[in-house]
Amino acid sequence: MNKNYYVGIMAGGVGTRFWPSSTKEKPKQFLDILGIGKSLLRMTYERFARIIPPENILVITNKAYASIVKEQVPEVLDKNILCEPTRNNTGPCVAYTALRLHQENPESVFVIAPSDHVILKEELFLAHISKALDLADQNNCIFTLGINPSRPDTGYGYIKVNDEIIIGQEQKVEKFIEKPDLDNALKYLYSGKYLWNGGIFIWKSSQLIKDFHEYSPNIIQTLEQDISKYNTPEEQSYIDKVYPSTENISIDYAILERAPHVYTIPVDIGWSDLGTWNSLHDYLEKDENNTVTIGKNTFLIDTENSIVRSDSKKIVVVKGLKNYIVVDEKDALLIYPKDQEQEIKKLVEGKMGN
Amino acid sequence: MNKNYYVGIMAGGVGTRFWPSSTKEKPKQFLDILGIGKSLLRMTYERFARIIPPENILVITNKAYASIVKEQVPEVLDKNILCEPTRNNTGPCVAYTALRLHQENPESVFVIAPSDHVILKEELFLAHISKALDLADQNNCIFTLGINPSRPDTGYGYIKVNDEIIIGQEQKVEKFIEKPDLDNALKYLYSGKYLWNGGIFIWKSSQLIKDFHEYSPNIIQTLEQDISKYNTPEEQSYIDKVYPSTENISIDYAILERAPHVYTIPVDIGWSDLGTWNSLHDYLEKDENNTVTIGKNTFLIDTENSIVRSDSKKIVVVKGLKNYIVVDEKDALLIYPKDQEQEIKKLVEGKMGN
Repeated sequence: MNKNYYVGIMAGGVGTRFWPSSTKEKPKQFLDILGIGKSLLRMTYERFARIIPPENILVITNKAYASIVKEQVPEVLDKNILCEPTRNNTGPCVAYTALRLHQENPESVFVIAPSDHVILKEELFLAHISKALDLADQNNCIFTLGINPSRPDTGYGYIKVNDEIIIGQEQKVEKFIEKPDLDNALKYLYSGKYLWNGGIFIWKSSQLIKDFHEYSPNIIQTLEQDISKYNTPEEQSYIDKVYPSTENISIDYAILERAPHVYTIPVDIGWSDLGTWNSLHDYLEKDENNTVTIGKNTFLIDTENSIVRSDSKKIVVVKGLKNYIVVDEKDALLIYPKDQEQEIKKLVEGKMGN
Repeated sequence: MNKNYYVGIMAGGVGTRFWPSSTKEKPKQFLDILGIGKSLLRMTYERFARIIPPENILVITNKAYASIVKEQVPEVLDKNILCEPTRNNTGPCVAYTALRLHQENPESVFVIAPSDHVILKEELFLAHISKALDLADQNNCIFTLGINPSRPDTGYGYIKVNDEIIIGQEQKVEKFIEKPDLDNALKYLYSGKYLWNGGIFIWKSSQLIKDFHEYSPNIIQTLEQDISKYNTPEEQSYIDKVYPSTENISIDYAILERAPHVYTIPVDIGWSDLGTWNSLHDYLEKDENNTVTIGKNTFLIDTENSIVRSDSKKIVVVKGLKNYIVVDEKDALLIYPKDQEQEIKKLVEGKMGN
């Protein structure tokens, strides 16, 4: 393992699309959403731990989640759990990580990755990441994994490349594109020049800091007012003071859409951001009636094309549901038509003031 | 209040028809099945407490439930919680109550009543009970309330009387009839000579003991081997020794079907034994979509002719169910077609080994 290689796992997000399983108190990345006894954060950690030295693994999270992070990935050094005092989107989060790593090791090269995605083809993924780390180490460029699209998804951002896509071959990015409508998504799928933006980026800390100075100077200037504070006992109080005044902006806007030296590596790694119950249904193994069961004591009768999730100890008996989402959590129970899932978020935010 | 008048509330039954709400650990009578903050036992107690002196209220239960009884009706004197060491049906249970009361007060007259029924018209009910107590006090007869039937129910036993039914007017019972098939239930309903057997009986302890000697001598002989033990600290150990060898038989078989001096008072008191989720649906107030909700944080959308029950603190969101039973308990969740309720019992006993 190369001791200059690091990963920053972002685990500060909130999100209620997986309500009632995900809540502000325990968002998606901390849930055992697949019912395999591990949270998505834990799975992400274990994946990277195969190629990154343990002391080089960082988790960037919100202060509110620091204790859940420690509990779920106790192997991560306390000093490597970076706590954002406020939610300022991914731009400041990545800049903080870069400064922190660069102060510790000016040769550092790092991956930044979400903690709430799943990847089926782990070996392939790690091979691509290793290659991207080497490329970033040897070039003053930014690299990203571009997910080879399998359907005209309107829930993802896209990356447009100049040439035909060749899996594994890094290519110059022409532009980043926000979530498209279905017409455009179909065009993208059939053009062969678009990839999904999976939010996984690889770069040298030195180059990224330079890029911040060029394309988002406000953020980096705010955070490097006193770089001597990084990697000292005063880091947290320093961050608590300066971080809240950074610009609230995503890393995509802050750097990737502005910098010219961005390359993508097209990959086919069984990736999903598991953004919805339906995507979870797509992703997981189904029974002969096309139903996904998460939970060990579930008895289904005449139930088709549904997803039934519960605590593994709870007995669940369901008869006769077709195309339903059934999710039972300690504080809430959801029984909802699967094809109307998009209503749930609004319902939760409106009716329940969540 | 007449100090010779007593009530014995039977609260020893088990039953899983209300699964998953009722379990062996906490059967129906101990549940707040109506969602009003009181168990059925508590409601039964409070009903009788309006006409029976508090020290004259007894609860007969299984040893396993003694602590739940104490918790739910703390007003009942410890010595008035009679604990059956074994489940020998209602025959021995009533005989024990009679001997115990007779030893304490040879003039005692008592009602025996189940603890898991509901009665809407409480004033009327209490008027009938008071009348029946007076009648039993003045006559060496057995009295029962006969519920005026409102539908051809095949889940109840029936009482046939000799004459046309006159509400409130006691009538000689011709015979007791087990649960009929639908054809017979329809005949009974239209003949005007049949009433539902609600399992509520009124008698003098002295007369009932005499009747036991005549019609079920084995039970009474077993229990009166040493009547000096009743109302002493040794009562429980005595009962523990003799009770298990009594005949396992219902009071209906043991006495009522055999004795000639049985009278019924036809009543119309809004009675239900709440034997099934459907009967609970019939009984409770429904919304404009004919749905019953038990639980305070339930949000229903396009849900019709259903019953949705949950812990009052849990948020429940249901969309699009028609004719369903949804019951959420701590350890189990049931989502089942309402018209197939009769399958649940078998399912629970078979699949879950309950």
